[in-house]
Amino acid sequence: MDFKQRTVTCGQLRAADAGRTVVLNGWVHRDRNHGGLHFINLRDRYGITQVVVNGDSDPDLQSTASQLKLEYCIGVTGTVRKRPDEMINKDLATGEIEVVASEIEILSLCETLPFMIDEENPAREDVRLKYRYLDLRCFGMQKRIALRHYFVKAVRDFLSARDFYEIETPTLIRSTPEGARDFLVPSRIYPGKFYALPQSPQLMKQLLMVGGFDKYFQIARCYRDEDARGDRQLEFTQLDLEMSFVKRDDILSLMEELFNYVFKQILDYQLPAHFRRIAYKDAMNTYGCDKPDLRFDLPIMDFNELAAKSSFSAFKDTVAANGFVKALCARPNEKCEFTRKYIDELQDAAKVYGAKGLGWMKVTSEGTLSGGVSKYFAGMEKEVIDSLKAQGGDVIFLVAHENWKRCCTSIGAVRSKLGRDLEIIRKSFEFCWIIDFPLFCYNEEEGHWEAEHHMFSMPQARFIPTLESNPGEVLGDLYDLVLNGYEVASGSIRIHDVELQKRIFRICNFTDEEAQFRFGFLLNAFRFGPPPHGGIAPGIDRLIMIISEMTSIKEVIAFPKNTAALSPMDEAPSEVDQKQLDELHLIIKKKD
Amino acid sequence: MDFKQRTVTCGQLRAADAGRTVVLNGWVHRDRNHGGLHFINLRDRYGITQVVVNGDSDPDLQSTASQLKLEYCIGVTGTVRKRPDEMINKDLATGEIEVVASEIEILSLCETLPFMIDEENPAREDVRLKYRYLDLRCFGMQKRIALRHYFVKAVRDFLSARDFYEIETPTLIRSTPEGARDFLVPSRIYPGKFYALPQSPQLMKQLLMVGGFDKYFQIARCYRDEDARGDRQLEFTQLDLEMSFVKRDDILSLMEELFNYVFKQILDYQLPAHFRRIAYKDAMNTYGCDKPDLRFDLPIMDFNELAAKSSFSAFKDTVAANGFVKALCARPNEKCEFTRKYIDELQDAAKVYGAKGLGWMKVTSEGTLSGGVSKYFAGMEKEVIDSLKAQGGDVIFLVAHENWKRCCTSIGAVRSKLGRDLEIIRKSFEFCWIIDFPLFCYNEEEGHWEAEHHMFSMPQARFIPTLESNPGEVLGDLYDLVLNGYEVASGSIRIHDVELQKRIFRICNFTDEEAQFRFGFLLNAFRFGPPPHGGIAPGIDRLIMIISEMTSIKEVIAFPKNTAALSPMDEAPSEVDQKQLDELHLIIKKKD
Repeated sequence: MDFKQRTVTCGQLRAADAGRTVVLNGWVHRDRNHGGLHFINLRDRYGITQVVVNGDSDPDLQSTASQLKLEYCIGVTGTVRKRPDEMINKDLATGEIEVVASEIEILSLCETLPFMIDEENPAREDVRLKYRYLDLRCFGMQKRIALRHYFVKAVRDFLSARDFYEIETPTLIRSTPEGARDFLVPSRIYPGKFYALPQSPQLMKQLLMVGGFDKYFQIARCYRDEDARGDRQLEFTQLDLEMSFVKRDDILSLMEELFNYVFKQILDYQLPAHFRRIAYKDAMNTYGCDKPDLRFDLPIMDFNELAAKSSFSAFKDTVAANGFVKALCARPNEKCEFTRKYIDELQDAAKVYGAKGLGWMKVTSEGTLSGGVSKYFAGMEKEVIDSLKAQGGDVIFLVAHENWKRCCTSIGAVRSKLGRDLEIIRKSFEFCWIIDFPLFCYNEEEGHWEAEHHMFSMPQARFIPTLESNPGEVLGDLYDLVLNGYEVASGSIRIHDVELQKRIFRICNFTDEEAQFRFGFLLNAFRFGPPPHGGIAPGIDRLIMIISEMTSIKEVIAFPKNTAALSPMDEAPSEVDQKQLDELHLIIKKKD
Repeated sequence: MDFKQRTVTCGQLRAADAGRTVVLNGWVHRDRNHGGLHFINLRDRYGITQVVVNGDSDPDLQSTASQLKLEYCIGVTGTVRKRPDEMINKDLATGEIEVVASEIEILSLCETLPFMIDEENPAREDVRLKYRYLDLRCFGMQKRIALRHYFVKAVRDFLSARDFYEIETPTLIRSTPEGARDFLVPSRIYPGKFYALPQSPQLMKQLLMVGGFDKYFQIARCYRDEDARGDRQLEFTQLDLEMSFVKRDDILSLMEELFNYVFKQILDYQLPAHFRRIAYKDAMNTYGCDKPDLRFDLPIMDFNELAAKSSFSAFKDTVAANGFVKALCARPNEKCEFTRKYIDELQDAAKVYGAKGLGWMKVTSEGTLSGGVSKYFAGMEKEVIDSLKAQGGDVIFLVAHENWKRCCTSIGAVRSKLGRDLEIIRKSFEFCWIIDFPLFCYNEEEGHWEAEHHMFSMPQARFIPTLESNPGEVLGDLYDLVLNGYEVASGSIRIHDVELQKRIFRICNFTDEEAQFRFGFLLNAFRFGPPPHGGIAPGIDRLIMIISEMTSIKEVIAFPKNTAALSPMDEAPSEVDQKQLDELHLIIKKKD
């Protein structure tokens, strides 16, 4: 299967190349016939070059040209010719020239396409994923996969220059008890035993610190067998990073420098030298979530004092019961009127998070309140308006709930929806750190405390003596990095003390025996001079998604699964031979 | 858990730093008491610094110093002092100075060590792997893991500069029929269905070529559930690479440039610009294997003609039956005498590969033959000696076998053993290409042809019209890269034609239905203008092993499994909860 190999790519030729004889290899992107003249837009990864088959060229060539269809893979030999000035195509990097074909070789044929190869592919997701090898030819996918390469390369360059080693950790490991969502891999040699695919290299990277590697990173494939919800994949990629002899601020600074470097390098975008740091509690109070989108304002404000003074019994009772009332001012605009119907939508958004209702009242241009719950604030109008720094034309939204977190997240949902619908989200990259997270949260279902992040994170020093007395109060040395309303990284300073680690396990309802069974190797390692250490793990898929201005990570993964955890292309997962099951000592359980 | 953080590393201080107050963090590597003076060698990833605790320092400091044990993790605050000239330790980069401690902080304790932390760890493999986090502290492991980082970084730098994109391919894929050795991952959502872990990204990278990515690479984790034999791991890492619009020599040149760059960069070692290319048949004939170690000579020579003329019926009969007789000349040296016992060992080596015996005879300084089978060559001495270019003192070894491959590999085993035992293996890196491999080999057990490498490799053009008539004769567009007797990469130009691909499947005993079921997605992709493409996949573990002058890939993997596919550290694989099995719809089959 011999063929003439390209001497140039389809993105390379310029006016200065006029007169050269060249060979191009690529795909027929577009194909037009203009009165005997045949124009072929030939495409490869590097660009598009216009090829012309003249009406006076030999009949064989003309015959070959007339057989061409979209996405045929062909080779073209020809001479570069400068286009007349009026024919220059400024949209193409090669738009100053065209190649006059002297020979066309068909390298492979293409059947009727399921969709056109273009900028973005409007086809249904499952069609796109079934023919992913064609979907990937679209410019948008090409650009994003390239961006991903450049992004990750820049990350590696930065960290390598900072003396980090990239170290590969195993992916056939022991199942750990986060475990419920582990993918298992049956062992053929050991009947009834399983390896697990790692949800992250967490324990392995901590062992690398015990092993003295000091600065470790890895672009690591991680696995989580979660039910399909939102934009998740069974396998995902994180920048896993760990350092010894560090404190929280070392990790935060390193990440700030890393993202400054990468965004400058890849997007020519200048980030601030330092990212805002917001305590978890403040983030919840002001933005109603722990991953605030700072590209728009609409701050949430405390309304307890004014609510207590109002004549609205729902509010007064909530405050009296040590509950919370929170307020938000927003102003309708041409993108979004605050109709009755729209306010109902906002209320529905709040209810998802537990709010029983959404109070509202208008601020008139005369500085009075009208509509909604305004009647309960008679006589307090000025106080309310001043306290919220509200302006004439604003609408005040109010949520009350006895539970602080629910109050925050309910009004946070209102804030998010307003930001989107008012279209006041600035086009920028707004990073911030969320710090001072609680270390534990209470699992109502199972009736015990569990780790908010994971069990290896260090409590803040002042809580260590009395962890057990009130786990809910304990703050951890935890930090999340948030970008444009998405959590893009999560990390912590780790425990490196056996006894402290055991106390955490006990609070999280692991007996010492169970802890030893599950994590014995980590506890053992901590007996041999472990260094203080900490780390973080930015999610690569989501970061690339955000900087590509996409809303699904599937747009930045070459061969993703669909939302049902299937691959429409190769139809994984699939049934396997009985012989394979026998070798693995497995029987499939019949459905009940 | 506050502590004083290092201001310098343990590998950093020089004479010019004398007088500075510094903080070091690290491990107690060695610890000596010299009449009141306490010397601590403090170690971190970067080096060792000597810390001195003076006899006149405060009692608290002295008390802390006296509690220290090996591998305690500590912080030291002190003043840098130039050592007297006679005390300079030229073996240490920091040997010109020491740090006079003013404060020592114990960061964590260390129990009695299972082995000393030193250059290499002489402990038993399972002890090393159980305490891998300590084994990794040994200098040898530290250096090799660092080397691996630098090596892979250089590979990425080179390929990125050559416009390759690193693209991640999925690791939860459809099980394919190489299949027998696939690791399976049960799906929780789809009872009875399985994902498979990839043995390589072969099909995915071919689909990336169909997707127009032109130049792809990936440092890819691959999985093979093989029985423990030799130096294999369940998971291993390869540089996976594929290019479109290429022919064989493009791949070979690229690899030559890549390894030239990497070896220069990492080892300051100059490789030749081009590597020798040896046809498979010639490699077998001359070196008795398809991964020849070119660091020593001892070429194998054809002996058929002379054997036919001899009076040794075993040889004569072999030749008469269209068999093969091959010869090798070697000369004993001070490392290895050719005693009767040693020649028996050589014969045993040959028998492993099917030889029935090993003939030998000595070349005397008078130019005659003596001993062994020499009597059968009476009157032919000069002819034999001239033909083999043998010298006085050489011993001629001879193997006969009716099967060409067995004849070659049998005497090849003799050659390898001689190279090792005579210690004539040069210290160098000898790359070569093996080309012109057969495309098919006959599976005697299952009674059909199968792919020598894999089913996606292109036959050489001249064989395409008549593939089916004699599959055994067909040469493929295949190439292996060999380094110092190890196969370090394997690749081919791929088929990109549906019909040709189907013919190969049929020759390999796949019905069209089965091929469609297994590989339908690849065959489908080939309907849409696939480009000509080819690639290669160097094995990273083995390459790093060879350049580290180690003999096991476990020496260059942070957390390997042992030969029994177990991890003595975390005891994977392990049993899992019944609940997990229930969720996966699996029952473990009881042993019969």
